[in-house]
Amino acid sequence: MKFVNFFVLMLLIISCKQTETQPAAEQEATKPVSEKPPIGIVIHGGAGTILKENMTAEQEAAYKEKLEEAVTAGYKVLEEGGESLDAVIAAIQVMEESPLFNAGIGAVFTHEGKNELDASIMNGKDLNAGAVSGISRVKSPIQLARTVMEKSEHVMLSGTGAEAFAQEQGLEMVDPDYFYTERRMESLKRAIEREKVELDHDGQAAFYDPFIKNSKYGTVGCVALDKNGNLAAGTSTGGMTNKRYNRIGDAPIIGAGTYANNVSCAVSSTGWGEYFIRGVVAYDIAAKMEYQKIPLQQASKEVIQDKLTAMGGTGGIIAIDKSGEISMEFNTPGMYRASIDSEGQLNIGIYEK
Amino acid sequence: MKFVNFFVLMLLIISCKQTETQPAAEQEATKPVSEKPPIGIVIHGGAGTILKENMTAEQEAAYKEKLEEAVTAGYKVLEEGGESLDAVIAAIQVMEESPLFNAGIGAVFTHEGKNELDASIMNGKDLNAGAVSGISRVKSPIQLARTVMEKSEHVMLSGTGAEAFAQEQGLEMVDPDYFYTERRMESLKRAIEREKVELDHDGQAAFYDPFIKNSKYGTVGCVALDKNGNLAAGTSTGGMTNKRYNRIGDAPIIGAGTYANNVSCAVSSTGWGEYFIRGVVAYDIAAKMEYQKIPLQQASKEVIQDKLTAMGGTGGIIAIDKSGEISMEFNTPGMYRASIDSEGQLNIGIYEK
Repeated sequence: MKFVNFFVLMLLIISCKQTETQPAAEQEATKPVSEKPPIGIVIHGGAGTILKENMTAEQEAAYKEKLEEAVTAGYKVLEEGGESLDAVIAAIQVMEESPLFNAGIGAVFTHEGKNELDASIMNGKDLNAGAVSGISRVKSPIQLARTVMEKSEHVMLSGTGAEAFAQEQGLEMVDPDYFYTERRMESLKRAIEREKVELDHDGQAAFYDPFIKNSKYGTVGCVALDKNGNLAAGTSTGGMTNKRYNRIGDAPIIGAGTYANNVSCAVSSTGWGEYFIRGVVAYDIAAKMEYQKIPLQQASKEVIQDKLTAMGGTGGIIAIDKSGEISMEFNTPGMYRASIDSEGQLNIGIYEK
Repeated sequence: MKFVNFFVLMLLIISCKQTETQPAAEQEATKPVSEKPPIGIVIHGGAGTILKENMTAEQEAAYKEKLEEAVTAGYKVLEEGGESLDAVIAAIQVMEESPLFNAGIGAVFTHEGKNELDASIMNGKDLNAGAVSGISRVKSPIQLARTVMEKSEHVMLSGTGAEAFAQEQGLEMVDPDYFYTERRMESLKRAIEREKVELDHDGQAAFYDPFIKNSKYGTVGCVALDKNGNLAAGTSTGGMTNKRYNRIGDAPIIGAGTYANNVSCAVSSTGWGEYFIRGVVAYDIAAKMEYQKIPLQQASKEVIQDKLTAMGGTGGIIAIDKSGEISMEFNTPGMYRASIDSEGQLNIGIYEK
């Protein structure tokens, strides 16, 4: 047995040495993919207490299928030479249109039984950004965020003002009922019921979802790198079940929920929004890369596993840098996620690594 | 002449040497102030094209008097051993109640002729934060931001929801007319008139103020360090004259308009909000201090004079760090500002340094 191990090791050493001594031209011929400028895309569909034992095989398959559809839609844009911003929109719109995720159709309800949607987008090339909060009548919140970025003098619009702007810009408007799903209405009813029961209300009861237990999370997001080296990030959400007082979470906050900068990375967050705002989480990862000169995965890990965790915050991020390095970091039991890297390698995950 | 110079130099050297060799006890007796923990406070009342030639002596005196009143109100809290958060509230409320500044009474009007107020506050000790946007019926927006921080599970509330929360918490409510001033209504009328005339509307016409020309700025803010080494920052504003679509600027955005962290500094911004959001300006100064290990003044200068200016953004910040070092950095012709340092030294400024 030992002899076999030794033999395999020797073979490995020889083959490695051969690769090392290959002439440059030959290397190019055998590895053409790595010579192309890197591209890549990562998506998330929310983080929280997502446990395998709470999910049927059918539910799991449905999530994986939709995650694959979304990440593939975005990757297709990049593969055909398109822009990272378009890839982000394409991937997020698949998730906004699916009732599985807390964004667009299937968004959670406020205490008053309304859907108030938030979204933001940022372009790493020129640091331009757009964000909307508290909208109920625009079909694609992420598209409106992009329109705010590109067609208004402002970064952030809210409520009926943002909707008036959407209408002026000719975006597709819908009846607020368009976002309604029976499942989310049931979640709201249960959350209100639990609130009444749990007198020592600790905020944990404020969100109830059959697949994301005991948590307040659920947001979709995407980050992408295109062949021109441009990074983009976007996030879209229905916020928190049973939310009140026109609460604004981290999703529409540039620096907290979304950030992109070609000099560092693109980040989209999902989690307990209040902590992500206080920790300026998305920008903090970029700042660590830029100022401490550390790689993306290390920066993400330090921000999520050390800083956010120390504050008591929970959730996760997806990120990509200019070299195509990908990070999917979370401190919850699960995060719906998927990526396709430069080599076209698809990766889908739900539970812990 | 040379001999005199030499003589003075020798005297200086001797006196310095004497100071150096003083016993510790004696040093304490002669310099008691520096043995106390440092305290300090800085305020701003907006930045923009504030030019001496556009202001009468009376106007200048009125601004200086109110700035002194505000900074002194905050310093008094610190001097008596109070908390930096209370100092920030005390100073900002003086400016919210003065029609001279674009916050509280004297806030600018939206396109529809309403006052929509924004504010935020952050505690450097525990990174807790509170923010409100688009409120019209709460007397002190900065007080509401603090109540959101301390009494709600959320960081950011908006519009009528934020007002409902204020009412539940027993905050002083006012009629929206409470914030009305004739001067700001005239500014709105002029802005709308100019918009009609200037067909090639470039966004510069959107704000008109007799004292802050050709700009969109006007916000009040305060940062403070108390004797326990706790930093706090707060910002309050009426936003932009003639603003539409429920635009949200940087003032209520943690990381952009306001940031405080005991490990680095407390910052409040004023300027063209969209650029401050995209640059995550307040947190960027703190991040540079923490990650690049550079002093506050250098970090502020790099963020405002290099990064913000390169983006095309204009405005300024006030900041203080845990040692009591103060920074008042702006790239506009003027910024209403005042500070009182550890030694009790008052400093008031309006125009360029």
